[in-house]
Amino acid sequence: MWRPFFEQYHLIIVQDGDPSKKIRVPDGFDYQLYNRNDVNRILGPKASCISFKDSACRCFGYLVSKKKYIFTIDDDCFVAKDPSGKEINALEQHIKNLLTPSTTHFFNTLYDPYREGADFVRGYPFSLREGAPTAVSHGLWLNIPDYDAPTQLVKPLERNTRYVDAVMTVPKGTLFPMCGMNLAFDRELIGPAMYFGLMGDGQPIGRYDDMWAGWCMKVICDHLGLGVKTGLPYIWHSKASSPFVNLKKEYKGIFWQEKAIPFFQSVSLPKECSSVEKCYLALAGEVKSKLGEVDPYFIKLADAMVTWIEAWNMVNSPGEKPAMTSLPNATSKK
Amino acid sequence: MWRPFFEQYHLIIVQDGDPSKKIRVPDGFDYQLYNRNDVNRILGPKASCISFKDSACRCFGYLVSKKKYIFTIDDDCFVAKDPSGKEINALEQHIKNLLTPSTTHFFNTLYDPYREGADFVRGYPFSLREGAPTAVSHGLWLNIPDYDAPTQLVKPLERNTRYVDAVMTVPKGTLFPMCGMNLAFDRELIGPAMYFGLMGDGQPIGRYDDMWAGWCMKVICDHLGLGVKTGLPYIWHSKASSPFVNLKKEYKGIFWQEKAIPFFQSVSLPKECSSVEKCYLALAGEVKSKLGEVDPYFIKLADAMVTWIEAWNMVNSPGEKPAMTSLPNATSKK
Repeated sequence: MWRPFFEQYHLIIVQDGDPSKKIRVPDGFDYQLYNRNDVNRILGPKASCISFKDSACRCFGYLVSKKKYIFTIDDDCFVAKDPSGKEINALEQHIKNLLTPSTTHFFNTLYDPYREGADFVRGYPFSLREGAPTAVSHGLWLNIPDYDAPTQLVKPLERNTRYVDAVMTVPKGTLFPMCGMNLAFDRELIGPAMYFGLMGDGQPIGRYDDMWAGWCMKVICDHLGLGVKTGLPYIWHSKASSPFVNLKKEYKGIFWQEKAIPFFQSVSLPKECSSVEKCYLALAGEVKSKLGEVDPYFIKLADAMVTWIEAWNMVNSPGEKPAMTSLPNATSKK
Repeated sequence: MWRPFFEQYHLIIVQDGDPSKKIRVPDGFDYQLYNRNDVNRILGPKASCISFKDSACRCFGYLVSKKKYIFTIDDDCFVAKDPSGKEINALEQHIKNLLTPSTTHFFNTLYDPYREGADFVRGYPFSLREGAPTAVSHGLWLNIPDYDAPTQLVKPLERNTRYVDAVMTVPKGTLFPMCGMNLAFDRELIGPAMYFGLMGDGQPIGRYDDMWAGWCMKVICDHLGLGVKTGLPYIWHSKASSPFVNLKKEYKGIFWQEKAIPFFQSVSLPKECSSVEKCYLALAGEVKSKLGEVDPYFIKLADAMVTWIEAWNMVNSPGEKPAMTSLPNATSKK
């Protein structure tokens, strides 16, 4: 189903769980597949920052990619149709979103002013019409909405059938729940902030990987003057995960997010933090000192954030050969 | 065209310009019509705060209304149709918007979570799901978009044909360009902040009446924890006003808004300001001291803001008889 839309791009597949299992990738795709053994070999002791048995492992793909634009998608997401019945080219829309600026400093009531047939409305200050470079494009889902376990339990039959034909900028200073199901970003602008945290195997929490990345990323985008969009494109989310399993994974997160969100709403980064890496390390320090009091998990997470940046720099430092070029047999995902 | 939608409501018509001209109101409407003579008689010397020969005069209707919900609409706005061809009941949608809370503190990616078929997505903190009371509902326009004169000049043929099926909260801390063409608000929650300023006859500026009200209102809503929504309902905006006339009216505003917006983005109201009236008076003081340096017009405007609150209190004080009940012949609008 995705073939006509993905064929011309490079795929990185991060295989979660048992590395001895074989994943069959259909013919005709340019791809790399990485399993846990590859992660361990490439990162050595720093592999500890990459989650296991959780969708958070995907961020390893961001780290080893050499592309400017990354699109990440879940395996139960398929091509959606627009109201006219036409199949939606999600990637094309994400790239449009990333190539046009964001309106981070002032709200435009007619939505994305850079879109054909739209513009800035009366009263939009002219000095702000250049907008901000867009770092992240957050796409939405038709059919199964991205609900938490309590909402899934209460509304098992709810389906998202509303196609909202809009792309919005999430304004500066406003946090949002970033879902990793249908997400694109500019790796050069924001890559090192897209760490999906410590989740799954051996960790007290799951299903907060994308949320964690979203909070960290948004604070850093706000600090660096980068934009974040949400809205189009839609994908078709085919199956709801089990609300019972999800409740187990989310349980601690439901409490912790009540502390984490005020933290992210009020955290401020020092002016000297002029790169994503510097911002991320400063944020890790704040997480350790402020959220460490909430639960020791956040101390471990803060350390993993530092390890992630070390791993990023190791794999991406200009002097080093890209890890994957020395691994012709390594296969991969995203 | 509006008859089936407006018939059951009370109309206040504020007649602008020459008071000796007769306005014919179709039969069957419950209405009051106020002309300039009525404004002068009711407000006495305080009538100076009500603009003449400018759409800003409409705020006199807000002041004399005794209703909880106000809907204000321009005379070139007609009933729009949704994509299925059904006529849109704009008032019904505005009232829905005002009766359901806003999501001011956190962005919900599936838009209005209080709407049927939608909810809060995964990662939306549970403590924030009560939302904030909604004070303002800002509707949009199909056909002629609300563009400023420079954009009208550059894009004379642009029409808004995109029906975006969404209602959004404008997040706390974010300003937006509020258009008075299709606007509803809860008079009890925010009425005294809906002053449309000094525009038109004898003033150096026009077409910034609704913008001014929007900036003031948003700062006060943010301070008081009230919500502002934008999006549905659409109306059909039938004719573009002349870009040449508009440029004359807007000319100074184009420069001034570059100073006014940073002012509103950074102004903060003292904690003691616990009512809209107190907030508005504090804001008038800030306007005088901070924007007075930009142009003496803002000193005059700040004084008019104070006069407006005095007029509001005079007409609306619990001890006083409502002005209009003692004026059985007075006719009226909104």
